[in-house]
Amino acid sequence: MPGNVQSIERAAAILRLLAGGRLGLVDVSNALGLAKGTVHGILRTLQHVGFVEQDKDSGKYHLGATLLHLGTSYLDVNELRSRAINWADSLAARSGEAVRIGSHLDGEVLVVHHVFRPDDSLQTVEVGSLLPLHACALGKAILAFDAAAAAAVREGGPVPYTRWTAATRRDLDRALAEVREVGWAGEVEEMTTGQAGIAAPIRDAGGLVVGSIGLTGPVERVCDGRRRPRTALVTQVRDAARAVSRELGARRW
Amino acid sequence: MPGNVQSIERAAAILRLLAGGRLGLVDVSNALGLAKGTVHGILRTLQHVGFVEQDKDSGKYHLGATLLHLGTSYLDVNELRSRAINWADSLAARSGEAVRIGSHLDGEVLVVHHVFRPDDSLQTVEVGSLLPLHACALGKAILAFDAAAAAAVREGGPVPYTRWTAATRRDLDRALAEVREVGWAGEVEEMTTGQAGIAAPIRDAGGLVVGSIGLTGPVERVCDGRRRPRTALVTQVRDAARAVSRELGARRW
Repeated sequence: MPGNVQSIERAAAILRLLAGGRLGLVDVSNALGLAKGTVHGILRTLQHVGFVEQDKDSGKYHLGATLLHLGTSYLDVNELRSRAINWADSLAARSGEAVRIGSHLDGEVLVVHHVFRPDDSLQTVEVGSLLPLHACALGKAILAFDAAAAAAVREGGPVPYTRWTAATRRDLDRALAEVREVGWAGEVEEMTTGQAGIAAPIRDAGGLVVGSIGLTGPVERVCDGRRRPRTALVTQVRDAARAVSRELGARRW
Repeated sequence: MPGNVQSIERAAAILRLLAGGRLGLVDVSNALGLAKGTVHGILRTLQHVGFVEQDKDSGKYHLGATLLHLGTSYLDVNELRSRAINWADSLAARSGEAVRIGSHLDGEVLVVHHVFRPDDSLQTVEVGSLLPLHACALGKAILAFDAAAAAAVREGGPVPYTRWTAATRRDLDRALAEVREVGWAGEVEEMTTGQAGIAAPIRDAGGLVVGSIGLTGPVERVCDGRRRPRTALVTQVRDAARAVSRELGARRW
């Protein structure tokens, strides 16, 4: 049924587009190169099923509330998350830092779990957000073991976030080779000034890297005087990644 | 384009079904009364766009990671949430209890924001989860001002969660009349034993109730000795709801 396939694919493309913000009918039609009538029919249907809502005043479209419920329902069936959740809690408690679990989604890292730093500081939930594969510890721990993703990032030209981002092919290759060698990834102000992170890959029963677990916090707490991630924290992160991999049935880690 | 509409509607129905958990092709086909070939075509497309994933071992389908990102992107465009977020923080800080913001979605309350109780106790994010309209303060604050929703709940037969739930038509009508009279909703062990809540409606520029904001916590902290919500907390909740309504342009609240 090519007809079915096409309208669902177009609907998905519209939803991805609207994930970037409110858009009018003409914006959507131009962005996707589709006739306005076609786009309007799809938007009307998406509105009917609650996936899209329309502003009363501006007439612009944006994502709908039903997607929020579907999205969080995904968390309940995510095996990596359910196996890792207790280990993430204990890593946060022991390290005193915020802990996140990530998996690869379309060339980015999707945060599937986030444990706040165990103090009363103001923090926002990052579950569902996307991070760059090459500019954070969570991402590098995945990228180092995914040759196809690494090639795509290399060819796409890695975006520099700060002056420390591995944003040239050579820097990135060197950084990923180091991750493979030591088995964990560090990140010192490569994505956000003042922030550092440590992450390690999580493997499934087949030995494949299916995600990563890591901590993130201020440079002065995560790193030692020579801007290197503290050895004690690295050990805690690696232990957590090993424990989750074991839960997933991995034989080597 | 009725063809387009139909396949997107069917895709949406399949996604809602999978929000309940993993299902096989036959389960989906039976639940929706559709031919296996039709369902398979839609599932394959949904898998292709990342909205659905298939277990390698069992062959069962479940929701996909892309939905998590779309769902949390919805939060960025939700006006109620963005206007209410600072007031929710300050309500949690002043009351010392967890604060949630809800809006009506298909006969339930969708939690669009959740501020943890400001202590270091173990709490899980409730954003994206659905609560029963009749059995929590957030829901009753909405239901009291939505005659159509109240009628639907009344006819559907409100489900009893505890012995305190307003689960008969008479109890529910009385509870909602009281909410309208006093302008806020209380909940004492009506959904969860040991828990109580206080919520007040949020109105938009047109005066319509578009959601609610409320706090929730242990009965002994939220209520006084006579199992009545503490007056000081009620005032704090009502002030927060008024402030958010003002931000949304409401002239009366």
